[in-house]
Amino acid sequence: MATVAARNGIDVGALVETIEAIKGKPELAEFTFRASTRWHEGTRSTAEIGSFLHAGAEDETRERAYTLVGDEPPVLLGRNAGPNAVELLLAALGFCYSVGYVANAAARGIEIEEMSYELEGDVDLRNFLGISDEVRPGFSEIRAKASIRARGASEQELKDLCAYVQETSPVRDVLANPTPVETTIEVLEH
Amino acid sequence: MATVAARNGIDVGALVETIEAIKGKPELAEFTFRASTRWHEGTRSTAEIGSFLHAGAEDETRERAYTLVGDEPPVLLGRNAGPNAVELLLAALGFCYSVGYVANAAARGIEIEEMSYELEGDVDLRNFLGISDEVRPGFSEIRAKASIRARGASEQELKDLCAYVQETSPVRDVLANPTPVETTIEVLEH
Repeated sequence: MATVAARNGIDVGALVETIEAIKGKPELAEFTFRASTRWHEGTRSTAEIGSFLHAGAEDETRERAYTLVGDEPPVLLGRNAGPNAVELLLAALGFCYSVGYVANAAARGIEIEEMSYELEGDVDLRNFLGISDEVRPGFSEIRAKASIRARGASEQELKDLCAYVQETSPVRDVLANPTPVETTIEVLEH
Repeated sequence: MATVAARNGIDVGALVETIEAIKGKPELAEFTFRASTRWHEGTRSTAEIGSFLHAGAEDETRERAYTLVGDEPPVLLGRNAGPNAVELLLAALGFCYSVGYVANAAARGIEIEEMSYELEGDVDLRNFLGISDEVRPGFSEIRAKASIRARGASEQELKDLCAYVQETSPVRDVLANPTPVETTIEVLEH
C-alpha cells in the first residue's frame, strides 16, 4: 500500500505496524493501566496517573504523572474543587469514542475535520445515600451524541463507523457489560 | 442528636438534612450529569465538565467548566498530552470510593486520618484494534485497594464500611453491572 505519513494526526504506518506486530505476538496487546487517588478533605481527592505495564514491561515514556482533582458540588457536600467521579466517567467515554473513531477513520482513509461528543447520564442517588435500594447506585442510562464533519466518506459510512467504534470501545464495553471489580482494604495501624 | 459541624470535612448536619429532604421529596435525588469532549488532533481531545441538572433544575454553582486533556502514549499512537480514557475511568473509581467512604464514615462517627486507593485494570487491546473479537474490548478485571487509617472504629468496622461503600458506589455499579449506553451520531454538513 502507499505510505501515508499521518491522517487525522494518526501515523497510519505505525498503526499498521502495531497491528501486524500484535498479530505475530499477541502479548503486545496486553496492558495494565493504573491510577491512584489520595483523599484530602471532605469530598476532595487528587488522582495521579503515571506509568503502565505493556506486555509485562513498564512504559516509561511519561516524564511525570498527570494529576487530577475530584470533588463534589455543594449540593453533594463538596466545594466544587473539581468534577465528580461520574462526570469523569462520562468524559472518559467521550475520549474513548474519539480515539476509536479517529484511528479507524485514519485506517479507512477518512479525514476528520471536526468531532465532538456530548455525554450525559441520569442517576438517582437514593441508593448511594442509603435511603433506598430500590434504585441502582449508578447511572440508569448514559447517552452519547457524536457530531462529526469528515471528508472521504458518505453519511452512511460515517454512521457505520460510529456503530463499529461503539462495539469496540473499551470504556463503552465496561459500562454496557459486567466487569469484575475486586476491592480490598488495608487498615493502616497507628 | 448532638450537632457536629464537620467530621472529615463533611458537614454532617447538612448530610442528615439532605437525606431527610430526599425522604420527603425523592426527586431531590435525581441528577443528570454531563461532559463534552472536543477532538483536536490524533488521539488528543479535551473535555469540559460544567453545570448539571438536579431535580430538573440547572445547578449553577460552578463558576467555570473544568477542562481535562485526554491522549494516548506513543505505543498507542499518541503524544502523552494527558491520560487515556481507561486510566481516567480508574481514577473515577477511586474518587467515587473515597467520597462514599468519607461521607459514610462521617455519618458513623469515624474520623478518617488517611485514605488512598490504588487502582489497576487489565486490558487486551486486540478487540479495540480490530485483530480479534475473542477478547472483550475493555478491562477483563479491575482491582481497587484502599489504604485507610482512621479513629473511632475497629478494623472490622472499617472493613465492613469498605464493603458497604462498594455496594453503593455509583462508579463501581456501572462497571460491575450492565448500564444502557445509547450512542447517536449527527453527521455535520460541509
